[in-house]
Amino acid sequence: MSGEFALSLDATDGCARRGTLSTPHGSVDTPAFMAVGTLATVKSLDPDDLTRAGAQMILSNAYHLHLRPGDELVRDMGGLHRFMRWDGPILTDSGGFQVFSLATLRTVDEDGVTFRSHLDGSTRRFTPEGVMQIERNLGADVVMQFDHVIPGQSDAATARDASERSVRWLARCLEAFAATTPPHGREQALFPIVQGGIHESLRREAASAIAQMHDWRGFGVGGLSVGEAKPEMYRILDVVGDALPVDRPRYLMGVGFPEDLVEGVRRGMDLFDCVAPTRMGRNGAAFTSDGRLNIKRAEFRTDPRPLDEACDCAACARFSRAYIRHLFVSDEMLGLRLLSLHNVHFLVALMRSARDAIANRTFTAWSQRWLDRYHSRPDTQE
Amino acid sequence: MSGEFALSLDATDGCARRGTLSTPHGSVDTPAFMAVGTLATVKSLDPDDLTRAGAQMILSNAYHLHLRPGDELVRDMGGLHRFMRWDGPILTDSGGFQVFSLATLRTVDEDGVTFRSHLDGSTRRFTPEGVMQIERNLGADVVMQFDHVIPGQSDAATARDASERSVRWLARCLEAFAATTPPHGREQALFPIVQGGIHESLRREAASAIAQMHDWRGFGVGGLSVGEAKPEMYRILDVVGDALPVDRPRYLMGVGFPEDLVEGVRRGMDLFDCVAPTRMGRNGAAFTSDGRLNIKRAEFRTDPRPLDEACDCAACARFSRAYIRHLFVSDEMLGLRLLSLHNVHFLVALMRSARDAIANRTFTAWSQRWLDRYHSRPDTQE
Repeated sequence: MSGEFALSLDATDGCARRGTLSTPHGSVDTPAFMAVGTLATVKSLDPDDLTRAGAQMILSNAYHLHLRPGDELVRDMGGLHRFMRWDGPILTDSGGFQVFSLATLRTVDEDGVTFRSHLDGSTRRFTPEGVMQIERNLGADVVMQFDHVIPGQSDAATARDASERSVRWLARCLEAFAATTPPHGREQALFPIVQGGIHESLRREAASAIAQMHDWRGFGVGGLSVGEAKPEMYRILDVVGDALPVDRPRYLMGVGFPEDLVEGVRRGMDLFDCVAPTRMGRNGAAFTSDGRLNIKRAEFRTDPRPLDEACDCAACARFSRAYIRHLFVSDEMLGLRLLSLHNVHFLVALMRSARDAIANRTFTAWSQRWLDRYHSRPDTQE
Repeated sequence: MSGEFALSLDATDGCARRGTLSTPHGSVDTPAFMAVGTLATVKSLDPDDLTRAGAQMILSNAYHLHLRPGDELVRDMGGLHRFMRWDGPILTDSGGFQVFSLATLRTVDEDGVTFRSHLDGSTRRFTPEGVMQIERNLGADVVMQFDHVIPGQSDAATARDASERSVRWLARCLEAFAATTPPHGREQALFPIVQGGIHESLRREAASAIAQMHDWRGFGVGGLSVGEAKPEMYRILDVVGDALPVDRPRYLMGVGFPEDLVEGVRRGMDLFDCVAPTRMGRNGAAFTSDGRLNIKRAEFRTDPRPLDEACDCAACARFSRAYIRHLFVSDEMLGLRLLSLHNVHFLVALMRSARDAIANRTFTAWSQRWLDRYHSRPDTQE
């Protein structure tokens, strides 16, 4: 495949794949971690921080931006790239996950979802067509379909109902998307989302129904990391990885932690996103090669070492654990920023190492070594 | 005067002076604004942000650092410069202002002050000797004496008592300072503080007593911008400026707002500090050439312009008022950071313009034009 949104695979090792995804705003080396900029800002970070961390593609959220500042305002300000000054690729999540997270605040019918804004309680309605218009207005490179998301442990009947509705909504998304043009001229790609809960046959059915509908540029894998056990997620990834076309990018939505990224790459996933690095960073938790550490612990009070001695991020290159701990203990904002920066850098660099291992056909051994070391020091876990 | 802490004056215009202050951590072009890093961090900013903003010298606070993380810890971590990774000049305030701000929590006697920590209520005691040890441990280039600070409107008797005590404490600071060595090898300079409230004769007496005690490398002017009217501050600055040696730097403590800096330079002051740019920035207020603006106002909702069209800071070079307003409305930390960055940059750049005007001997006309424009648009004031 060539042209915009083409995935060029240059190496594989087992199911793990290394490639380059092209977009109208530049290309992305895959597998890749996308930092999450829910409200058109990756919390506590500057776009320049992300560039320096090596991030190539970020994610933003249609639900949140629709409510605040409004997708039409973003459109009028030149689109999301220009508004937030991120010139690289952007993906927008459709709001499916957010709307269904509202629990008692929403009602689903075949046409769409009525819900109350988490900000002011006002009644809102999302339909596949409405969400496509929102994502057109925002102008991200990749836009996700509006889907019906269910809890990770849902039974087969519930999962089938939601998955089949998601496929019907996908057809409406595709029609609405095809009937509109990007307001800022740059091409956008609509990605479907494979649902089906933890039920292998439902996942295969969804993948098949979606693939028959259209020649998609890429695929989202949704409804994972939403409460199911990790082995269940890995089992479903094995199934979905087999069911999707080899030459299109697979985006594992909302995942995840460092170990989940490694396990996802091992199962043929190409793109990942998660709020964990910034959310945990704001809470004082840092990813390191030796596992997680909580910088607020007294043991770091006079520790002159960087968060991770193997890391070359803007925090580790300059600051001691003692200083960053002082910032956290004193509620100083620089502390939140440094840990967020480090954690995003850590996941971006982890995916770079994975790409190198795939290119060298040493992914299996590398990933096992990496996971063993990451899990080796329970005393530094939070 | 030559060597460390020498002030080399290269131009004067009226009482305004332009020069270079040398320190063991590099030189500072004066007049200069010092950003305030109370707890070894300029709130919401990274040292690299300060460098990019053109800041050359910063201030930190002995009282706050003594309580948290502890001046001995900072000493053991290599001193303040290394701890916070600021390689330029640093000045530490002695804590006089902070201790006397505690009001009911402190008692003064001739030997020192007993107070309760604002953090945990524990009883603490500051004496001139103790504060010198704290400032030695922190290792700033310039350390301020421990002084007795009083409210701006204090009567002559109260002001005389505090000013004379400050002079007696200065003698003890000097003795303690001379009896110790900097723990990290780099020379430090002790600056006295001229007190005397809004009483001209007391200010002259203090300046004279201080000058007779020692050949100081520079002078602090304290007890201003603490509740007195602005014309009173300007009147006292005229008196103090006349009373101090021409060839030593004058540091106007805790001042201030843009207009105060211009008025201070006009009266021969060389160094300034204030929390205003970062504190106001966190509250949504931005300094601009046309006065202050509050970015949270609805009028900026779709404003594509930068905060200040004449500004080349990292915020103005990239982001619209609309985007920064969105960040504030959404409680996103990047908003606080961008406004803090802009405001610090604004004051640093203002002092650069003042230096240029002094060099061109156009300071009087420049400052009048600048003040007229700054005060010209009341509609954009907060």
